Amino acid sequence: MTLLDAITGPGDVRALPSSALPVLAGEIRRFLIEQVSRAGGHLGPNLGAVELTIAVHRVFDSPHDVLLFDTGHQAYVHKVLTGRAAEFETLRRAGGLSGYPSAAESPHDVIENSHASTALSYADGVAKALRLKGSARRVVAIVGDGALTGGMAWEALNNLASTEHPVVIVLNDNGRSYAPTVGGLGAHLGALRSGRAEPGNLFQDLGLAYLGPVDGHDPADLECALTEAAALGRPVVVHCVTRKGKGYPPAEQDQADHHHAVSATGSNGGRTWTDVFGAEIAAIGEDRSDVVCLTAAMQGPTGLDAFAERFPQRVFDVGIAEQHAVTSAAGLAMAGLHPVVAVYATFISRAFDQVLLDVALHRLPVTFVLDRAGVTGPDGPSHHGMWDASVLPVVPGLRLAAPRDPARLRELLREAVAVSDGPTALRYPKAAAGADIPAVRRIGRCDVLREEPDPVGLLIAVGPMAKACLEAAEELAGHGVPVDVVDPRWTAPLDPALVKLAAAHQFVLAVEDTTATGALGGRLAQALAVLGAPTRVGTFALPASFLPHGSRAEILRAHGLDAAGITTTVLKRLKEHS
Amino acid sequence: MTLLDAITGPGDVRALPSSALPVLAGEIRRFLIEQVSRAGGHLGPNLGAVELTIAVHRVFDSPHDVLLFDTGHQAYVHKVLTGRAAEFETLRRAGGLSGYPSAAESPHDVIENSHASTALSYADGVAKALRLKGSARRVVAIVGDGALTGGMAWEALNNLASTEHPVVIVLNDNGRSYAPTVGGLGAHLGALRSGRAEPGNLFQDLGLAYLGPVDGHDPADLECALTEAAALGRPVVVHCVTRKGKGYPPAEQDQADHHHAVSATGSNGGRTWTDVFGAEIAAIGEDRSDVVCLTAAMQGPTGLDAFAERFPQRVFDVGIAEQHAVTSAAGLAMAGLHPVVAVYATFISRAFDQVLLDVALHRLPVTFVLDRAGVTGPDGPSHHGMWDASVLPVVPGLRLAAPRDPARLRELLREAVAVSDGPTALRYPKAAAGADIPAVRRIGRCDVLREEPDPVGLLIAVGPMAKACLEAAEELAGHGVPVDVVDPRWTAPLDPALVKLAAAHQFVLAVEDTTATGALGGRLAQALAVLGAPTRVGTFALPASFLPHGSRAEILRAHGLDAAGITTTVLKRLKEHS
Repeated sequence: MTLLDAITGPGDVRALPSSALPVLAGEIRRFLIEQVSRAGGHLGPNLGAVELTIAVHRVFDSPHDVLLFDTGHQAYVHKVLTGRAAEFETLRRAGGLSGYPSAAESPHDVIENSHASTALSYADGVAKALRLKGSARRVVAIVGDGALTGGMAWEALNNLASTEHPVVIVLNDNGRSYAPTVGGLGAHLGALRSGRAEPGNLFQDLGLAYLGPVDGHDPADLECALTEAAALGRPVVVHCVTRKGKGYPPAEQDQADHHHAVSATGSNGGRTWTDVFGAEIAAIGEDRSDVVCLTAAMQGPTGLDAFAERFPQRVFDVGIAEQHAVTSAAGLAMAGLHPVVAVYATFISRAFDQVLLDVALHRLPVTFVLDRAGVTGPDGPSHHGMWDASVLPVVPGLRLAAPRDPARLRELLREAVAVSDGPTALRYPKAAAGADIPAVRRIGRCDVLREEPDPVGLLIAVGPMAKACLEAAEELAGHGVPVDVVDPRWTAPLDPALVKLAAAHQFVLAVEDTTATGALGGRLAQALAVLGAPTRVGTFALPASFLPHGSRAEILRAHGLDAAGITTTVLKRLKEHS
Repeated sequence: MTLLDAITGPGDVRALPSSALPVLAGEIRRFLIEQVSRAGGHLGPNLGAVELTIAVHRVFDSPHDVLLFDTGHQAYVHKVLTGRAAEFETLRRAGGLSGYPSAAESPHDVIENSHASTALSYADGVAKALRLKGSARRVVAIVGDGALTGGMAWEALNNLASTEHPVVIVLNDNGRSYAPTVGGLGAHLGALRSGRAEPGNLFQDLGLAYLGPVDGHDPADLECALTEAAALGRPVVVHCVTRKGKGYPPAEQDQADHHHAVSATGSNGGRTWTDVFGAEIAAIGEDRSDVVCLTAAMQGPTGLDAFAERFPQRVFDVGIAEQHAVTSAAGLAMAGLHPVVAVYATFISRAFDQVLLDVALHRLPVTFVLDRAGVTGPDGPSHHGMWDASVLPVVPGLRLAAPRDPARLRELLREAVAVSDGPTALRYPKAAAGADIPAVRRIGRCDVLREEPDPVGLLIAVGPMAKACLEAAEELAGHGVPVDVVDPRWTAPLDPALVKLAAAHQFVLAVEDTTATGALGGRLAQALAVLGAPTRVGTFALPASFLPHGSRAEILRAHGLDAAGITTTVLKRLKEHS
């Protein structure tokens, strides 16, 4: 029986003698390394937060005191300490433990969202409400140094600074988010961390209290600092210096940070869309000296490493700061370059206003490359890239593409960076890119993938849905239901050739790896309705709801977005309307 | 002949002897007071920036050096000095001078967008591009202290701090944006401004150079500081202390800041939507102690003054920080309150991700009140609230309403704050709210406004389009074309009763004060197409493009969104399809 086996909740953690804490920390590290190596998930950030999380649970009383984990992937230790160790085998599996805090799992979890830099804003709101209600509950926000590069964190610090609320900001400073923390802030924290005499301290300049630096792996120091912070009764930053990957040499020494998140064993499915993009953008960089790339703390995961290696002066990591990524790209374009902003699809929501007014209003040639678009998988509702294909078509002048195969990704990327009068965007999933799928012929900007002599309908295969649509068409032909298949390539704005092609069919089904609201099928239905075309148009996409975690294939299948599901849906709808 | 009459461009400003500058400044002030009092526009910010703008044009060489005005309403003096004084009579009129910088007007204008806190990001991008091209052109960003409360500004400062680019940040610090600048930053700037000894300086902490404080109304001091800044060759903040409204006692002494922007004389058209909201939310505040309000530096303009006067502890001004406004509202809701976030419709784009993941994913009861929705008028493309009605319906669980009259605004607001399981939003324009429009009967959540015995079609009157639709219906009846009229009240998600009603008509036209892409008509067409209903659905809305400035009535008329335009469109479409 280990100490960890006896932990059923924070009360058990508080009951341990101080002398037992190093043993508990060691047990938790071994547990995490074993579990995450097998199930996949975030390893480095959690190994660095073991003592810090134990100390938070000993000094504060969750859930009476409100614990808010920013960028929730650092909450595994919190999960272990709040009675969920036994469920770790199901981590990030469909129906299993979430990789982020989840209120459905535990009363100790509050923020279910994994986008960075939000915890301080929640903390400000919760603290204001508790003050109005006369409650003495305390609010603790656990925030990484990388999250402080996001503008939201600044907005919140500025607001917290002028309050007298009992908010403790535990700054988990490991000097890096995914990559080393960028900018002046990273340098300033580095100076504070090292204990070098600094003329100032920006937290204190803002009016916040500051305690530290504290050794984030020393239980006694941590408890002492947190206790002092709790007693202050006003917003205070407790600067904890930690080491990412602590206690696991492969992760500690990993400069390229491959242990930030690890994949489940055996999940390798061949060359990914990211790989194809990474190779092609590097090749484009050779041909086009005006092409520069931007990343928001995700150079490796978005595939920019090869480009960065060849053209180190032409890649800019702006930190976890999508707004700045987009508007500084606008500035680069104003001065005559062609910026390529590579971000996860879910994070472009952070910069919708900047895409709209800073880039598109000025008709600037900026290319957005949206990785992890559509169903992402085990990272759950806030990582599925389900919204970009609905909101980006609203932006006047923006052209949006979805490649169906590696050849089309290369082709569309070349077309995008050749556009000189406005923004373009490409979206593709976190998945293997598969084999190339040849076209029968091109109509307008669309590729016809299958043509029947006497079709009863048309499947519009958006991006990676092409393979499933072609398989479904084959199966439908076997059922005596011949359908054509077309890949629009550019999904917004609507290609007049696509509208015309659709209007020539009795039945059209747009198959899309995104939320149904605002998707291509909807815009096509609108266009056909205006024409008064008798075509019946259906959208076959993800529901207008937040989807839980699970594997990409499982989630697509559950919503009928595979060959069998498409076949069934077409047969059913034809029957309904016959 | 005045000095101002002889200014045709920056060269003339540079040629003036220093001794002439106070005279020029006085002439510019008299000119602005006269012009803006007549035409409407931003007065206070520009009166405070006269000497500062003159100094910038004497030290730097626009357009060779790149001048970037943040929140472009402080660029009037710049317009005067770059040869546009003679056109000021057309300010903010259709076809006339824009109230913001405009590249179409002058090579001296760069950013055409008026959303705050962007200039530093543009500056970072432009400077990076110029460095890559080997250019020695300098970049000057003129930024107000209020804009620094926005997170984008922090992201940009953090990035600029780690470069060696020649970027001069002219901080126009008047201690207030619309209201006094909130938060720790405002206090810190106040301390720096007063010359009090501070242990630190947050700009220097970040690694930026800092010069100041400088008297922003002393031409010699300003030129000296800017010359020194230009010589540094790296990012530097020049802290200029100015007085908003300087030289115009009514504006200088105006604590409530009514002279920030002034309306054109004679534009008063009765009680506005904002007035109706302001009175009702104050009344709700009496009944519901859990209702709190948030504003992003816009307490007065969004109608929260009465609420704030009665419940000062329950209103929170977060600064120009929409992201924080939304997520701190999420925090307030998590702790059991019902927050009402009152912002301009165009600014909710800044917080789409926060509405989606911080509020809606957690099913939190937050009500968004979107003022200045639809066509706004003289403030131009970045102030028209044309995007919220397209992107908010994408948010799962969010309910969106558009009131047609004062009674409905009160009713829908009461319904919204009664919702406990997710976000709600109300949108209405900057206009007189008009008279109440009675309903014939209610179907589902919709109000039927006109019912014909044997209708050929249905007009869906979204929000303030009701009056024009009813007038059009009357006129169409005279042409022998009887149509029903319905107000959906709640426009998203689609009311099944509305879908059913639409499916029972041969011809449906949704009339909407928003961009066509993603609007109600599109979502309805999609729903009817799935049903296989033979109804023809049209959306009659604003084009999918950026609209220039002009009066609200002019712009609506130009796009056929008045009674005459609707009548003509219906007759034309019926003829096409007959």
